[in-house]
Amino acid sequence: MSSWHIDYHSPNRGLTFAVEKLLYSEQSPYQKLEIVQTPEFGKVMLLDGVLMLTEKDEFVYHEMLCHPSLITHPNPHTVLIIGGGDCGTLSRVLQHSSVHRVVQVEIDEMVTRVSKEYFPLLTESVNDPRVELVFDDGIKYLMSKVNEFDIILVDSTDPVGPAEGLFRKEFLLSCHSALKQDGILCLQSESPWIDSLKPVIGQMHTDLVSLFEGVYPYIASIQTYQAGLWMFQMASKRYSPFSADSWDRLKNSHLKCNYYNLPIHTAAFCLPEFVVKLLA
Amino acid sequence: MSSWHIDYHSPNRGLTFAVEKLLYSEQSPYQKLEIVQTPEFGKVMLLDGVLMLTEKDEFVYHEMLCHPSLITHPNPHTVLIIGGGDCGTLSRVLQHSSVHRVVQVEIDEMVTRVSKEYFPLLTESVNDPRVELVFDDGIKYLMSKVNEFDIILVDSTDPVGPAEGLFRKEFLLSCHSALKQDGILCLQSESPWIDSLKPVIGQMHTDLVSLFEGVYPYIASIQTYQAGLWMFQMASKRYSPFSADSWDRLKNSHLKCNYYNLPIHTAAFCLPEFVVKLLA
Repeated sequence: MSSWHIDYHSPNRGLTFAVEKLLYSEQSPYQKLEIVQTPEFGKVMLLDGVLMLTEKDEFVYHEMLCHPSLITHPNPHTVLIIGGGDCGTLSRVLQHSSVHRVVQVEIDEMVTRVSKEYFPLLTESVNDPRVELVFDDGIKYLMSKVNEFDIILVDSTDPVGPAEGLFRKEFLLSCHSALKQDGILCLQSESPWIDSLKPVIGQMHTDLVSLFEGVYPYIASIQTYQAGLWMFQMASKRYSPFSADSWDRLKNSHLKCNYYNLPIHTAAFCLPEFVVKLLA
Repeated sequence: MSSWHIDYHSPNRGLTFAVEKLLYSEQSPYQKLEIVQTPEFGKVMLLDGVLMLTEKDEFVYHEMLCHPSLITHPNPHTVLIIGGGDCGTLSRVLQHSSVHRVVQVEIDEMVTRVSKEYFPLLTESVNDPRVELVFDDGIKYLMSKVNEFDIILVDSTDPVGPAEGLFRKEFLLSCHSALKQDGILCLQSESPWIDSLKPVIGQMHTDLVSLFEGVYPYIASIQTYQAGLWMFQMASKRYSPFSADSWDRLKNSHLKCNYYNLPIHTAAFCLPEFVVKLLA
């Protein structure tokens, strides 16, 4: 490994950063995982050369995938995480005291096993008695589930390789069926700045609108992800994030966050004009 | 010039992008200017190797430096731009029909002269009869000005080299004096993700709070600037951006934007928790 890594965001651009040391490398049936030590971001996880996680700013992605939906739902008991093997999302879900059961279905056990060694602050969450870890294909797992979960969070890699199916309408339909009558689905949905991803984001939005009562796309600044801007799509059968009840729950939640807060809970859903046009 | 450029955001990280061709290069007494053609961002201007402007996303920085203040002020007649030689900010100021006079004080005539050749869509604004171009030191220019401007926009480079003085309290005090009794100052204030810039942002905020009635920091996603997140600070003697009057003006303004819109006018001021802490 050279002393600088490039995380390509398109064939013509990328984030480049200094690498002090390759700490670990392993190839699973699904992907190649590397852990590198960097002066800028601390420990960094790469999957097939793509930056997944940094010690320095993992909090943005994980807080913003989890908390808006768990605050929007008045009483989330049962949560399903698809993907999320590094356990950063899981650790945030467990901060919500209403949660009684979390199932995490990660296709690649390697990701969780290696995260236990290099990101122990995230993976200590797996010892919580509310957690069930399943290492299996999330698409297959969901096929037999009906009316079971209050919240489903899709914490996937990019729409190539193992995660490709998690962006298809069939999968979104399975999520809809697996949710209870008032359930909420939230998915990571890539960067609206990257031209090649715009059709993926637009199609996901169209598919969600055809399935759910309310669809609420939102954004966050993630400096180490593509183009520094990341998008999520919350799809809800009943509850809206813009309710006085949500704001009250958040005020009373005592969540300790480094990105998410009461103003962001509403502001994240206010989209720049070029994103509005992309979804229109 | 190699076929890939690195725009360093710290000694250990940067944005890297393919460069097809060096179109122009010139050294002024102040800085080295280069115009390069890129497949990802179209034409790009570099000053001393630092990315200043791209055809693809210049709209974010220029819309967001200009419009929030010009919408917050109920009737901006006279506007001063410090820096801004590429004329992207100027072109947005002129979209506001209340504006009768715009003075732009750029220290380096090279920037405007070369922009006329390579970014003509931005510089055509200099032909507007409301515009006065001054090529001089903005700090010196402001010293003799009292109670003259409704709006001052500081469109500077980073706080090294020619722009260093534009981040000092003495300069902010000159701006305060040059503004009318109900004037508004808005400055670009760097990226809150970059550790070395955090003290600069914090000091500017403290200084502005000591001088102005209301200080309103806000953010925008600028994919080609440092860490993809940029900050601005609006400092106002009387008006608040959160007034029903502002929203009505924006609704009636017929501005054509690609980033700024009615929800963003409020949401941009909602800061992630780590930025709130930085300013505390």
